[in-house]
Amino acid sequence: MSSTHTTLHLPQPDWLADWLMQPPPEPEDRARMAEVVAIARANVERGCGGPFAAAVYRLDGIERISAAVNTTILSHCSAAHAELQALGLAQQRLGRHTLEPLPCVLISSSAPCTMCLGAIAWSGVRRFVFATDRSDVEAIGFDEGPPTPDWRDELARRGIETEGPLLRADGLAVLQRYVECGGPIYNGRSTRLQG
Amino acid sequence: MSSTHTTLHLPQPDWLADWLMQPPPEPEDRARMAEVVAIARANVERGCGGPFAAAVYRLDGIERISAAVNTTILSHCSAAHAELQALGLAQQRLGRHTLEPLPCVLISSSAPCTMCLGAIAWSGVRRFVFATDRSDVEAIGFDEGPPTPDWRDELARRGIETEGPLLRADGLAVLQRYVECGGPIYNGRSTRLQG
Repeated sequence: MSSTHTTLHLPQPDWLADWLMQPPPEPEDRARMAEVVAIARANVERGCGGPFAAAVYRLDGIERISAAVNTTILSHCSAAHAELQALGLAQQRLGRHTLEPLPCVLISSSAPCTMCLGAIAWSGVRRFVFATDRSDVEAIGFDEGPPTPDWRDELARRGIETEGPLLRADGLAVLQRYVECGGPIYNGRSTRLQG
Repeated sequence: MSSTHTTLHLPQPDWLADWLMQPPPEPEDRARMAEVVAIARANVERGCGGPFAAAVYRLDGIERISAAVNTTILSHCSAAHAELQALGLAQQRLGRHTLEPLPCVLISSSAPCTMCLGAIAWSGVRRFVFATDRSDVEAIGFDEGPPTPDWRDELARRGIETEGPLLRADGLAVLQRYVECGGPIYNGRSTRLQG
């Protein structure tokens, strides 16, 4: 172990870069969610990480700014969730720490865990859309963190609209596929590593 | 803007790597907190980011596993908080997504925002110690995110001990110094960028 490891490096898998060469979907929630759920499914089928994906799109245009899958296990980083990485990648592409100047929507295959909820509040994103609910993710064994009552109202108070569940059945099918594949449930405590 | 930007890259400032060449402090909370608060102060004096620092130390030894300062503005990433980065750097150094196998404490100059609280719950850390309280950070203008009632009980339920405020006056002095320096209050909405 180097004593000077001071850069956190979170790469997305190569297949996602190839995916992003495709044109973005039509600029509406349902088409964008269909893409994000398909990316989450691809992450499960390729065994790259948790059954989660997220992407940032322009609200006033067709552009896909960033996309990310969960890479917690491959990246050796418990914070490498799809939402947090999609937001960070979008900000780095924009060259500033907030998306506020470019009206954007974050589309995610699942409602946020506590960490990602906090990340959304810091991000400057204007709209958030999710497929499966927190309870759906907890039902397969993940511990989504300390509860945050009225999280949608809390985002609304910060000027962030929410929409969902949208295409929940498709999102649930991805979670179920992860369980069928024997995907690890990577809670912090090893006593809970078996979901 | 490249259409294939798919790696989130979060470097710590060079001066911190130099700092980490020093031997770690004595293996007890107060000495470790004194180091972390001094790192937070150095981050303010050097103008590198928010007035926050965090470090991961072994609970069963003297070793400092990782340390990080807030680099939100320099890294162009609203998630580049000290706690989240210190945990991720420690996990990457350990080569796995949870710190559970190596009993560790996270020492932070402030109580966690909602994002970092969620990150702590995912991390596998066993103990968390903080200097200033959430209300102290909010008092200088930061929006720490949707409230998480009983957060210390929630961490306890996950097997994570908490201790604090510890050296709160020293932590408060760093926050106050940031205000005196005119440090930006980088909430998500630009309407709140003036703290």
